[in-house]
Amino acid sequence: MRFASLIDAIPADSRPVTLPGAENWMQGRTLFGGASAALALEAARRALPGLPPFRAAQVGFVAPVGANLAFTVEIVRQGRNVTQVRSDIASDGKLALTALMLFGDSREPNAVHPAARADPWPGPPEDCEALGSGPANFFTQNMEIRRAQDERGRGVPIMRRWVRLRERDGLDPIIQAIVLGDALPPGSMRAMQRQGPLSSINWSFNLLDPEARTRDGWFLAETAGDHADHGYSSERLRLWNADGQQVLAGMQAAAIFG
Amino acid sequence: MRFASLIDAIPADSRPVTLPGAENWMQGRTLFGGASAALALEAARRALPGLPPFRAAQVGFVAPVGANLAFTVEIVRQGRNVTQVRSDIASDGKLALTALMLFGDSREPNAVHPAARADPWPGPPEDCEALGSGPANFFTQNMEIRRAQDERGRGVPIMRRWVRLRERDGLDPIIQAIVLGDALPPGSMRAMQRQGPLSSINWSFNLLDPEARTRDGWFLAETAGDHADHGYSSERLRLWNADGQQVLAGMQAAAIFG
Repeated sequence: MRFASLIDAIPADSRPVTLPGAENWMQGRTLFGGASAALALEAARRALPGLPPFRAAQVGFVAPVGANLAFTVEIVRQGRNVTQVRSDIASDGKLALTALMLFGDSREPNAVHPAARADPWPGPPEDCEALGSGPANFFTQNMEIRRAQDERGRGVPIMRRWVRLRERDGLDPIIQAIVLGDALPPGSMRAMQRQGPLSSINWSFNLLDPEARTRDGWFLAETAGDHADHGYSSERLRLWNADGQQVLAGMQAAAIFG
Repeated sequence: MRFASLIDAIPADSRPVTLPGAENWMQGRTLFGGASAALALEAARRALPGLPPFRAAQVGFVAPVGANLAFTVEIVRQGRNVTQVRSDIASDGKLALTALMLFGDSREPNAVHPAARADPWPGPPEDCEALGSGPANFFTQNMEIRRAQDERGRGVPIMRRWVRLRERDGLDPIIQAIVLGDALPPGSMRAMQRQGPLSSINWSFNLLDPEARTRDGWFLAETAGDHADHGYSSERLRLWNADGQQVLAGMQAAAIFG
């Protein structure tokens, strides 16, 4: 199911819309976090044409995001280089997502420090084992997924997968990266004593390559539980492109239910 | 200069206040990020007594925070376990800081995964070399600072220091941790080719120990530039207590000027 059909439905104003095909991008009763964050970015760009390149976002997942949405976009501050924009999504009339987004012009770099490759490097996606796309009616059906780590089952709370969208035509690589950047479950899942629901509460990230370049749509996604206790986990989320350059660096708070 | 005197001045409503002694906590023309984030947390707690334990925040530094402030606090969503609160600070009538804060009750943990110690461990603060407190009229005058890494000058973009507030009486350890959590300059400073201004644009963090326990007020602070280019850097911020347990995990986007 084309994510582009959801993107195409976003208006440039706050009129309510019903997204066609949203039911194919659900994680339970909500659009999954990567999809809703990508919609919020596109709403900001559509409402405010001429924004500088997208750099970062702090996204709060407030309530389930369904198919009946209204987008509200507001410039919080416009500086010389950097514009900060709030992009909110209401679902069935109630606030469901709120994001503070950062757009900034490139400057001649004073500091250049490329992020490190994934370690250990799993090899290119083409050489890795293909996995199933998860349960029916789950958003992962829209993705190709390949194993990118040797570890399986319980253990160190890190998860790595090569991921790409099956249908990418007409979809900006930045949108693809955001959709895929929150596609894996929290790494702390691998430290759970028993199966139980998990939920991302927020997601903050920096886009390291403002063009999110990659080959054939492939990104290496990682979620790593830095710490888990008290029913919560602190997660580190990263995305590398097919050549091993890091594209996205992020973190989130997740709720780990009993 | 006691940070508690700033904290004590925060009202439980949105009446404008002038913070006594704010001039001692400035970083140029703004209160530094850790101080203003701590004020936003205290404003939330004061306006909404009975909140569950503080867990996380996504803070946007929108404009300089001066001494004449007004605090606005609003519940964004109250769920069974988790309450999300927006806490904003206006300075001289204009939005200067906006934060989405997460408060959540503890649950019987399904996943327990303690964060790792700092590596390499610098030894306890008492054994480390004391450093100066920076320039006069700079907020670092309120802190004791000790070296916690061998590296000096230009090089790998990581900075580690033992830090504590000189005057801690009456100050909640969580507030101390937040004040200190954004006290170091971005690690990418060590990758800069020439001196130039730096500026944190946002700060997202999870509080791993909801009581922020430590000994004698000491925290080990780290800023690590994960990636720098185009005039921006992606920073990872961590705080450990005096016994080496991680207390705070965070990230930020910084602007690195020429």
